Amino acid sequence: MDARAMVARARTVAPRARRVGVDARAAEGVNMRRCGATRARASRADADAAVEAFLNTLKYDDGGLVAAIAQDVDTGAILMQGYANRDAVAYTLKHRKATFWSRSRSQLWCKGETSGNYIAIDSVHVDCDKDSLIYLGVPTGPTCHTGAHTCYYKRVDGPDGAATKASGGRHAAEEALTTLYELEATIEARRVEAKKEGVKPSWTRRLLDDPELLCKKIREEAGELCQTWEENEGKEAAANEMADVLYHSMVMLNKQGVSMTDVLGVLRKRFGTSGVDEKASRPPKKLINVSK
Amino acid sequence: MDARAMVARARTVAPRARRVGVDARAAEGVNMRRCGATRARASRADADAAVEAFLNTLKYDDGGLVAAIAQDVDTGAILMQGYANRDAVAYTLKHRKATFWSRSRSQLWCKGETSGNYIAIDSVHVDCDKDSLIYLGVPTGPTCHTGAHTCYYKRVDGPDGAATKASGGRHAAEEALTTLYELEATIEARRVEAKKEGVKPSWTRRLLDDPELLCKKIREEAGELCQTWEENEGKEAAANEMADVLYHSMVMLNKQGVSMTDVLGVLRKRFGTSGVDEKASRPPKKLINVSK
Repeated sequence: MDARAMVARARTVAPRARRVGVDARAAEGVNMRRCGATRARASRADADAAVEAFLNTLKYDDGGLVAAIAQDVDTGAILMQGYANRDAVAYTLKHRKATFWSRSRSQLWCKGETSGNYIAIDSVHVDCDKDSLIYLGVPTGPTCHTGAHTCYYKRVDGPDGAATKASGGRHAAEEALTTLYELEATIEARRVEAKKEGVKPSWTRRLLDDPELLCKKIREEAGELCQTWEENEGKEAAANEMADVLYHSMVMLNKQGVSMTDVLGVLRKRFGTSGVDEKASRPPKKLINVSK
Repeated sequence: MDARAMVARARTVAPRARRVGVDARAAEGVNMRRCGATRARASRADADAAVEAFLNTLKYDDGGLVAAIAQDVDTGAILMQGYANRDAVAYTLKHRKATFWSRSRSQLWCKGETSGNYIAIDSVHVDCDKDSLIYLGVPTGPTCHTGAHTCYYKRVDGPDGAATKASGGRHAAEEALTTLYELEATIEARRVEAKKEGVKPSWTRRLLDDPELLCKKIREEAGELCQTWEENEGKEAAANEMADVLYHSMVMLNKQGVSMTDVLGVLRKRFGTSGVDEKASRPPKKLINVSK
């Protein structure tokens, strides 16, 4: 079985297992035992040859390097960007930990070998020019040496094209937040903002201050999302109602101190199990009256 | 008002407006008119000086370049990575379009100037080493010259450390999908998979084949999310129920041919308006019976 077929098989047999190296290897292991140890050794040799062939296709610069960008598999946050030589890419593929070539120290650098904050590799992707890689993975702690989640914690532009200067203090607010996390940050900002005399509170703040209203809205919006199908209201209505469901549900998460990262972690961990099996494995739930 | 104060003000007065350059400039414009044209010119000079000062802080390599990574503000997808010299960064900040230095052509390259597929800048972020930037933005079309959404359309690792070879055909499946989009892709895979005799269909497929069951589940899960607060079930339960809400709602989106990208686009466009105002601007909705 060549490397490509192995990947195709892993996707077919256990499409969600590939997210977690151990599970994927376990799934593959079943196949390995069937084929016998000789076949397994042959597969390993094929895989090694495929890695070598891939490493030969990369377009290294004069210093023998390609760019390597580490990205959080749950949130999509870009964690850091460094450079990788042939050995660093090979090490990353083999050991499933994001590894770079340190230009300042002129040595291989498996991120986390000192701090313990590794980036466990989920998958690796190459760009069309073959001179840049994405290391998609799960960080086991803060990526930045400053203790920040990501090294990109400073925003350097303003709405009028002005640049901000380097500073501490507001790191989170200056991260490259994508829409979902910008919404999450906005909800949090509404939670902590001071009430002002004579100024009507924001809708978010009203929901946070009145959880019964919030629950009523969440149930309503879920119903309205269903209604877009039941009443054939069209795609635009469905996107709008889903936006409502997401927003109101995220206010509920904020109310309970839960982040979208927590939720995505739950979804990722479920990937290895089919929904039917996963549901069957859970303890029975109390019956809920959704009309209340 | 110096550049930093302008940014702080834009964040305070119109924290959601910064997502859209035009709205943010309009919000800032109110302030500009109050202060008068002389003040506006002074602010512009301050802003230019701040940009120059920032450009001086970047750690350019021997070729005068820093790395620049373009990221989709809605999905978090890494679109492309190139290099930027001082002029490219300045152009990006001024014109709000992702701009690079083409090493092969030795010239400034405003991405999209030929293809029309620009990346409209939402914000720019620098890393702790000051030698790498994120251009966070909205692509106006496919980023890659191949027509792919992102230049990183090839996966180069398998679950056993094997590398795949370059190939066409399965680009989307080989993209660096983060958890939300992996889930979306899995739901789509369940939709298109062939039914097999004697094999129990997946839970996702059962929901897609039975939209009434799907609607019932969405309403139930929304109720269960509310219940985590009503019954004080704790954070883990809230994260689990939100995962259920998300998954079932995303099956409904698939049923109607709507993507999460569409939904996030809706949320981003709402950023410029408070929830209260936004709701007031919408036509009244039909009353929904959430218990049906």
